[in-house]
Amino acid sequence: MKSNEIVRKKIPLVHFITNYVTANDAANALLACGGSPIMADDIDECAEITAMSQALVLNIGTLNQRTIASMIKSGKTANANNIPVILDPVGAGASSLRNETTKRLLAEIQFTIIRGNLSEISFVAGCSASTRGVDSSEQDQKHDALTIAKQAATKYRCVCVVTGKTDVVTDGIRTAHIHNGVSALSKITGTGCMLSGIIGAYAGALKDSFSAACQATISMGLAGEIAYEKYKMIGTGSLHIGIIDALSQIDDTILKERGKIIYETDC
Amino acid sequence: MKSNEIVRKKIPLVHFITNYVTANDAANALLACGGSPIMADDIDECAEITAMSQALVLNIGTLNQRTIASMIKSGKTANANNIPVILDPVGAGASSLRNETTKRLLAEIQFTIIRGNLSEISFVAGCSASTRGVDSSEQDQKHDALTIAKQAATKYRCVCVVTGKTDVVTDGIRTAHIHNGVSALSKITGTGCMLSGIIGAYAGALKDSFSAACQATISMGLAGEIAYEKYKMIGTGSLHIGIIDALSQIDDTILKERGKIIYETDC
Amino acid sequence: MKSNEIVRKKIPLVHFITNYVTANDAANALLACGGSPIMADDIDECAEITAMSQALVLNIGTLNQRTIASMIKSGKTANANNIPVILDPVGAGASSLRNETTKRLLAEIQFTIIRGNLSEISFVAGCSASTRGVDSSEQDQKHDALTIAKQAATKYRCVCVVTGKTDVVTDGIRTAHIHNGVSALSKITGTGCMLSGIIGAYAGALKDSFSAACQATISMGLAGEIAYEKYKMIGTGSLHIGIIDALSQIDDTILKERGKIIYETDC
Repeated sequence: MKSNEIVRKKIPLVHFITNYVTANDAANALLACGGSPIMADDIDECAEITAMSQALVLNIGTLNQRTIASMIKSGKTANANNIPVILDPVGAGASSLRNETTKRLLAEIQFTIIRGNLSEISFVAGCSASTRGVDSSEQDQKHDALTIAKQAATKYRCVCVVTGKTDVVTDGIRTAHIHNGVSALSKITGTGCMLSGIIGAYAGALKDSFSAACQATISMGLAGEIAYEKYKMIGTGSLHIGIIDALSQIDDTILKERGKIIYETDC
Repeated sequence: MKSNEIVRKKIPLVHFITNYVTANDAANALLACGGSPIMADDIDECAEITAMSQALVLNIGTLNQRTIASMIKSGKTANANNIPVILDPVGAGASSLRNETTKRLLAEIQFTIIRGNLSEISFVAGCSASTRGVDSSEQDQKHDALTIAKQAATKYRCVCVVTGKTDVVTDGIRTAHIHNGVSALSKITGTGCMLSGIIGAYAGALKDSFSAACQATISMGLAGEIAYEKYKMIGTGSLHIGIIDALSQIDDTILKERGKIIYETDC
Repeated sequence: MKSNEIVRKKIPLVHFITNYVTANDAANALLACGGSPIMADDIDECAEITAMSQALVLNIGTLNQRTIASMIKSGKTANANNIPVILDPVGAGASSLRNETTKRLLAEIQFTIIRGNLSEISFVAGCSASTRGVDSSEQDQKHDALTIAKQAATKYRCVCVVTGKTDVVTDGIRTAHIHNGVSALSKITGTGCMLSGIIGAYAGALKDSFSAACQATISMGLAGEIAYEKYKMIGTGSLHIGIIDALSQIDDTILKERGKIIYETDC
């Protein structure tokens, strides 16, 4: 399947209600991979903007009472119009406001795809990833990510993406492990937000949301690898720019050749 | 006329009430071409900040009720103090809130320069650019841009800039067609916002607002060309940075040598 | 003392309540030098976020009534928990709102470190730097910076950093003059905000706040020098990225070798 070609042909309009720290990067990452971003968070226009979009991305990075209300309204509008909705529960688990907002969003909106790190998705799944503590082995973490991703996906009938050393994508039945990406991505703010945006583009252009989440996650990991090869000796500023560069150059040939994805099926 | 030299010598302070997606780029683009930016959107300080500035740029990219009130207040302050005011009606036509806000701004504030794409300026002019549909030829679009720009300029007694493949600048009497720029600029968020900011710098430094709009528009197009020559094979992240680089290097010699501007006069 | 190594080992979590223009740069600069940023400005979560952080940075760049209330709440929480608090009084002196907010923050919060340019710190110190006018000599400015920094440090029992051609760091008793940095930094928005963020990282990791302020200030100046050597002929976009690159590469060896710091002691 030529997923990236479809994104670049359809140029899905993606509506973001997102944080002000990484909004620029999310917009540029989306443009780079073929989508078209629109940021709008006022309650008096958010539903209209959602209704004309092909996907909605809700990111609670710098949430406040004003934007939370807009997220609820846009999420419901997306649901009513069968527009895919992506949740990025930035920092879920870190404050009561983030926890309560995440719970409220999950209760009132049917999400298509939820993406976060292990700690955030653990909160979404309703269990604690921190019980093992910081000394958990890599194998333990991988096991945790898989269990928690499936739990969240099943509980909220959606695709769930847990990013980490290995990324896990699952809809509760189908599961993929993605081994692209470099740890240096964690030294740049907003790589998670960028990925959630790109997932919006793929979900807005492709019919299968599991596949959309997989292809987007490979794209981001691959962009990190390509940029790291080029800029690892230069620094994280260039790495940041190199990620956008790579996203704009990625096509289905590279995705297929360099994508390290392993599918499993529950039986 | 040495327009860029004047900007760099006067270092006009430009007050922005703008969106959080491209605020950083707008500030850096402004600094690069010789201006000095100040972003301030609280109703309790915006008038004071406007009053000490040489230009005001109102950009409705991520408008909300709080900032709309500040835009009105700052716009009126600018008018009362003969400070040029630039409007960037981002997304006008796309939502009722943007439409009503644009109308209200146009009714309550005398703008010096309005800049947008064909669709945004069509809304400003009070006509629909979409009537021809997506199948309109390039010639048709060029004709539309000219007609609509003149209509908006005449209606609001200001200079109007319609950016596109060819940029049109007009005050209703004098008109210029600018053939600089590359289509790849559309793959980077905020190039329009950057241009509106730069227009603020030129308008704050030069007496003639038509000339200010022309020189700023050439600068931005030229920066795109220079960056594209250098980074077209690298990607849109580098192109983005290259635009700021080029803006910081542009001087009147390059503007004169590479500026592709054709003036026409109504008779 | 291996200050940067300590920062990179402790990875201090730094809570920012800051402006939307430079939030991305502040976050990336902090990550580059070894810290971990969290931006959160809602009154319903800011205290919780502060309480889990190793430092708090308050930056009034695009202040509004909503975020001012959060700054007060987070500042008090930091004080109650012995968490260092850094103030960046962006534009203090430029509007009544900024002046009153700065005064209120200074009255209600015990700051650990205050950083600003000469004009901002003059306001903090309660005197006017502008009395000498723009014709003041470099020697005069240096003298002013020293006097004003000491006055602010003594008045608010904190470390005070005045950045300029020479940076002055003082706690009223110990004083350091730092001769790193390049004037081209002023052509990039947010270099001051980045420095205030980095100061947060060092203050969150080191016990001595005077030393933290010195090392952070050297880092930023040095990053500017390194980036300028590389990109001075390219432009300010690349210079901007080069600063983050350099920050991510700086270690204690470079800080020691290239840091131009001269200590004086009052007697």
